Amino acid sequence: MSTTYSMLGGEGPDSYREHSKYQGALVIAAKENINEVISTKLDIDTSSNLINIADFGCSSGPNTFNAVQIIIDAVELKYKGESSLKDKEFQVFFNDSSNNDFNTLFKTLPPARKYFATGVPGSFFGRVLPRDSVHLGVSSYSLHFISKIPNGIKDRDSPAWNEEIHCSGSSEVVEKLYFEQYKNDVGGFLNARAQEFVSGGLLLLLGSCRLNGIQLFESVEGMMIDYIGSSLNELAKQGIIDQQKLDAFKLPIYAVQADDLKQIIEDNGSFTIEAFEKITHGKGEYPLDTDYLTLAFKASLGGSVAALFGQDAMEKTYELVREKTQEMLPQLAKAKAGMQFLIVLRKN
Amino acid sequence: MSTTYSMLGGEGPDSYREHSKYQGALVIAAKENINEVISTKLDIDTSSNLINIADFGCSSGPNTFNAVQIIIDAVELKYKGESSLKDKEFQVFFNDSSNNDFNTLFKTLPPARKYFATGVPGSFFGRVLPRDSVHLGVSSYSLHFISKIPNGIKDRDSPAWNEEIHCSGSSEVVEKLYFEQYKNDVGGFLNARAQEFVSGGLLLLLGSCRLNGIQLFESVEGMMIDYIGSSLNELAKQGIIDQQKLDAFKLPIYAVQADDLKQIIEDNGSFTIEAFEKITHGKGEYPLDTDYLTLAFKASLGGSVAALFGQDAMEKTYELVREKTQEMLPQLAKAKAGMQFLIVLRKN
Repeated sequence: MSTTYSMLGGEGPDSYREHSKYQGALVIAAKENINEVISTKLDIDTSSNLINIADFGCSSGPNTFNAVQIIIDAVELKYKGESSLKDKEFQVFFNDSSNNDFNTLFKTLPPARKYFATGVPGSFFGRVLPRDSVHLGVSSYSLHFISKIPNGIKDRDSPAWNEEIHCSGSSEVVEKLYFEQYKNDVGGFLNARAQEFVSGGLLLLLGSCRLNGIQLFESVEGMMIDYIGSSLNELAKQGIIDQQKLDAFKLPIYAVQADDLKQIIEDNGSFTIEAFEKITHGKGEYPLDTDYLTLAFKASLGGSVAALFGQDAMEKTYELVREKTQEMLPQLAKAKAGMQFLIVLRKN
Repeated sequence: MSTTYSMLGGEGPDSYREHSKYQGALVIAAKENINEVISTKLDIDTSSNLINIADFGCSSGPNTFNAVQIIIDAVELKYKGESSLKDKEFQVFFNDSSNNDFNTLFKTLPPARKYFATGVPGSFFGRVLPRDSVHLGVSSYSLHFISKIPNGIKDRDSPAWNEEIHCSGSSEVVEKLYFEQYKNDVGGFLNARAQEFVSGGLLLLLGSCRLNGIQLFESVEGMMIDYIGSSLNELAKQGIIDQQKLDAFKLPIYAVQADDLKQIIEDNGSFTIEAFEKITHGKGEYPLDTDYLTLAFKASLGGSVAALFGQDAMEKTYELVREKTQEMLPQLAKAKAGMQFLIVLRKN
C-alpha cells in the first residue's frame, strides 16, 4: 500500500512533484483497464452532445489532468466513427475542498485541452453538483480521508483514546471507531454521487487499501507513520514540542481492507461494481532505502508536522524518523504489501 | 460615468471594499428592473430542473454574489406557486480570467447559498462554457475592457501614437483604433455567449458608458485619468520613472458611447435588446471633493501604477494628482455626467 496519506500536502515544489508522480502512476497504469471499461460499460444517452466529467478530490494538479484526459480519450475512442462525436463537447468539473489551491490548478490547465474547465469548491462527502448531471467521474487517492476524527480518539480519559497519530490497527476499539466513521463517510460520498450521476454513468475510484487480513501496522506506511508518531512523542517528552498539541494531532485517514470497501459499496446499493481490480505498477511499492523512505514521508506529512509544531521541530522529528527507519530496515523488509486499486462503479 | 476602470485592482482591503461597493450599488439599484425583465422576458424550457446562471467577469467577490442572488430570487419569484419550482436546482458559473483570485472567491461564498457554485477560468472574449447550457447570465463592469491595446498606440513613431495613458477622445485617430478594437471584442463576447446561451435565455449587462456626444475627457473619469497621466509624465521628465516604461503603460479600457454600444449589439444580431436603461443611483456620480477623488482613483489605478513603477513613484504620482485635482476643481465641477446602464439581451 502506498501514499495513502499523500493528500496532506508536500513541502516545496520538488518534493510535491515527486510525490504526486507516485500517485499519478496509478491512473497511467490503469489506462488500458479504463479504456476497456468505458468501452464496454458506459451506457449513457448518446443523443446528448454534452458529456460532463468530474474529479472528486482533484487537488491542484497535475495528476487530475492526466486522469481526465485518459477518460476523454476513452470516450472518444468509444464513439469513434459515429457522426455525433464531432458535435460532442466535454465539460470537466474539478472538485476539491474550498481550501484547495484552485488558482494554481487554473493557471496550470493544459493549454491544448479540448474541454471546458470548471472548479467546484466543496466537500465531496456531500452534494457539489446538480442532479443527474455527471456522466463520468473519478476520485483518485481521496477516499481514505475521513471527514472527522471519531469522538474519544483525542481524549486521554476516554476508553477510545488513541495514543498513536493514526489508526494503525493495533487497538481494536480505535480501529472500530475509525471504520464506523469511514463507512459513514464513504456512504455519504456514494449517496451524493448517486444523486449527481446520470443512470449508467461510471465512477472510477483509484487509490490504495489493505489486503484482506493485513493490519496497517504490518505495512511500510503503517510502520513509517508509527516512527513519525514515536519521534514526536520523544520530542514531547523532551519538552521540545507541546504534549497537548501532540495529543490533538491525529491524521484524518483510514486504510480500509479491500473486502470491507467492497461491502460498503454493495450495502449502499446506488452503484453496481463493474470492476474491483488490483493494479500493479512500477511505483506500487516503496524501495527499501532509508533516505527514500524518510524523504517520502517528509514530503507527505512534514508539512502538517511543521504547520503544527514549527519548522525546527519538524526537522528534528525527521532526524529521529531517519534513525528509526535505518534501525528498523529488517522489519520494513518483512512489511506486508498493500493493494493499489481501480474500482469501477456504474450508477444504477 | 463612474468606476469604468475599477477592475484594474485596488490596493489594500479597505480601498478595495469601498471601491467594490461603488460598483455593487448598480446591481442593487437595478434590482426591480431585473425582477421585471426576468418575470416578463425569460422564456426557457421550464421542464428542465436545472437552471444555469453565469457571471462573466466575476472578480473575486463579493458583488458577484449579490448579482447572482438577485437573479435567483427573480427566477424563484417568476415560478412561485408552480409545482416544478421545488425540484429546480441552480448552478452558478463564476467566470473570470485564470489570473483571477478564485481561491478568495471560493472561500467567501455565501454559506447559506442555495446553488451549486463553480468557477470557470478563461477569457470571456471566447467560449468558456458548453453550447446551449446557460439560461441566465450577467456581466458587470466588465465590457469596458479591451483584449489588447491596438497596434501603433504605444509606438512613438506611429501616426496612431497615443501620448495619453488611455483613450480620452482627444485624438480622433486614437479614438477610432480603440473603438475598432472594442467593437471586435464585444462582437467576440456576444458570439461566444450566443453559442453558450439557450434560446430565450437572458444576458444582463451592467456598467457605465458615455452619453451620446460626450467625450471621455469631458467626464470626471477622463479628467482624473488625464491628471494621472500628466503626473506620470512629470515624474518621467524628472527622471524619477522610466520614460519607456511610461510609453508602454496604456490602460486596456474603452468608454463607449451609448448609441455605439447599442449599434454593436444590433449588428451582431445574436441577441434581441429587451432593455437599454439608464440606472440612477446614489453612488452614480463622484462628489466634488479632492480627497475623495484622489483616493478613489488611487484605489482603482494605484495598484497598476505601483506594480509598474514602484510604490514610491506611485505615492509621488498621487501627490501630484491631488494637487492637480485641487487646482482643477472648477473644471471638474463642469464635467459631463456619464451613464450607468442595465442592458438586457434575449438570445434569439
